[in-house]
Amino acid sequence: MTPELGGESAPAAAGGPLVILAAGGAVPFEVASAATAAGRQVLVIALEGAADERLRAFPQATVKWGQIGKVEALIERHGGREICLIGAVDRRPDFANIGVDLGALRYLPRIVKGMIGGDDTVLGNLVKGLEERGFRVVGAHEVAPMLVAAEGRVAGPDMGASERGDALLAMTAARAVGALDVGQAAVAVGMRVIALEAAEGTDAMLERVAALRANGRAKWSGRAGVLAKRSKPQQDLRVDMPAIGPKTVEAVMRAGLAGIAIEPGRVMIAERVETVALASRTGTFIVAYGDLPAPVAG
Amino acid sequence: MTPELGGESAPAAAGGPLVILAAGGAVPFEVASAATAAGRQVLVIALEGAADERLRAFPQATVKWGQIGKVEALIERHGGREICLIGAVDRRPDFANIGVDLGALRYLPRIVKGMIGGDDTVLGNLVKGLEERGFRVVGAHEVAPMLVAAEGRVAGPDMGASERGDALLAMTAARAVGALDVGQAAVAVGMRVIALEAAEGTDAMLERVAALRANGRAKWSGRAGVLAKRSKPQQDLRVDMPAIGPKTVEAVMRAGLAGIAIEPGRVMIAERVETVALASRTGTFIVAYGDLPAPVAG
Repeated sequence: MTPELGGESAPAAAGGPLVILAAGGAVPFEVASAATAAGRQVLVIALEGAADERLRAFPQATVKWGQIGKVEALIERHGGREICLIGAVDRRPDFANIGVDLGALRYLPRIVKGMIGGDDTVLGNLVKGLEERGFRVVGAHEVAPMLVAAEGRVAGPDMGASERGDALLAMTAARAVGALDVGQAAVAVGMRVIALEAAEGTDAMLERVAALRANGRAKWSGRAGVLAKRSKPQQDLRVDMPAIGPKTVEAVMRAGLAGIAIEPGRVMIAERVETVALASRTGTFIVAYGDLPAPVAG
Repeated sequence: MTPELGGESAPAAAGGPLVILAAGGAVPFEVASAATAAGRQVLVIALEGAADERLRAFPQATVKWGQIGKVEALIERHGGREICLIGAVDRRPDFANIGVDLGALRYLPRIVKGMIGGDDTVLGNLVKGLEERGFRVVGAHEVAPMLVAAEGRVAGPDMGASERGDALLAMTAARAVGALDVGQAAVAVGMRVIALEAAEGTDAMLERVAALRANGRAKWSGRAGVLAKRSKPQQDLRVDMPAIGPKTVEAVMRAGLAGIAIEPGRVMIAERVETVALASRTGTFIVAYGDLPAPVAG
């Protein structure tokens, strides 16, 4: 029996429920589960057509793209003041089917202004709009700390000396790319950086690494080299956190890399149980690698 | 009648001829023509199967991959002390057909050692080997200064304000990528960096930009944005200079970009007449853009 929320008001808990605005992927379910396990009441507001079916286990309502007014009405009725915006968003929502309601109009000037900037700015301006209206925006990793890793080995074998060198080099390159506000990832093999992420995203970059190896522009034998993924210094981790998951491990294997280095505390491990199991089974290391020297002039 | 050099010795000019070790592409012919036009005697040593047919107009001999001993014998016979190594090299020579001669063996330890590093290091170590043996290695742009551009407009329309912003941003990104010793190019559109070059090379990066636009990960209307290409700070421009040419202009057009910004004096314009004509005809700007602020900590 799905506890879909209807028109009548449910009694609000002291402080109100944690409102989880859920887009696609498994992470919203993980966040809702973690919050519930910690004794917190939740209210899931699921984006129609995107959100995980398993979210129906929680008190839940459904909205369409652009129905910010409905979201606000739901939150007001249930008394929540903390909002977690979480989940993968299709970069090309079907704009013809967006029902922008009256509530959304209050946010539009900010968002349109934000759209002149990059992707991050749109979300950043939505957050500012929510905060101006008195909501507190919390990050998924604040609700579910197991989504991020402390420094050290996360899964798979320990790194060897060559992997440690590649991890340091790829992390340094990823930091430079992040400092430019361009990307979050880089790949190094044999102490050479062979790919830098920009608008194409990590998965497309890893496909390119596989192609570079296939066409001979980069050569190595067996599995070697490291994907580094880290946040940009200016990134608002509450609403836009870099993530890895089972698909990342698969793409790293297809690219012939030995493992993944992530920034401690600032990169999400989605579906952590599955990700760790897959990495361990396939001998792909995942390490939270925080041992970086100070930045140098670039 | 091709003046192919045979066994007998030709009289060496005072100071000897400029030795042009020519691999593929049009640039070796341009260098030989420029040197001849400046009154300099040349000796072209053409890499078999790679070098431009037009080089037969110059005093010329042919060598295979690995015949460094033959190269040295030719140079000694003709008295040249200055060498220009120029032209595109297939990244995957047919190693089965390489005839490494005795002369090459003197260079091998250096080169093998160099191969443990990146591509640049192999060439750098060949240069060191030549210099140790008393040769002076000169850059193509020293022989043919019209291969590089002074600051300012090179071809096509003037940049507008948005192109100037994108040129500055892409140049800044390309400099960061070069400082990491990773790549030489970047693309910015609408004040957003959407591609960074690493091992894939500039042409593959421009194909990716076209794909990013086609799949909606980057959006702009008409032609906008800039390819920036510049040298790495540590690059030995005598043997490894970034280059643009007619194919770059075509790839920039296919990617929907407005133009190309290059570093003054340090990026080669191959086939300059054809490149400039194509850029002008298609309304693609090429500008040597030197107006960069000082580097910041990255």
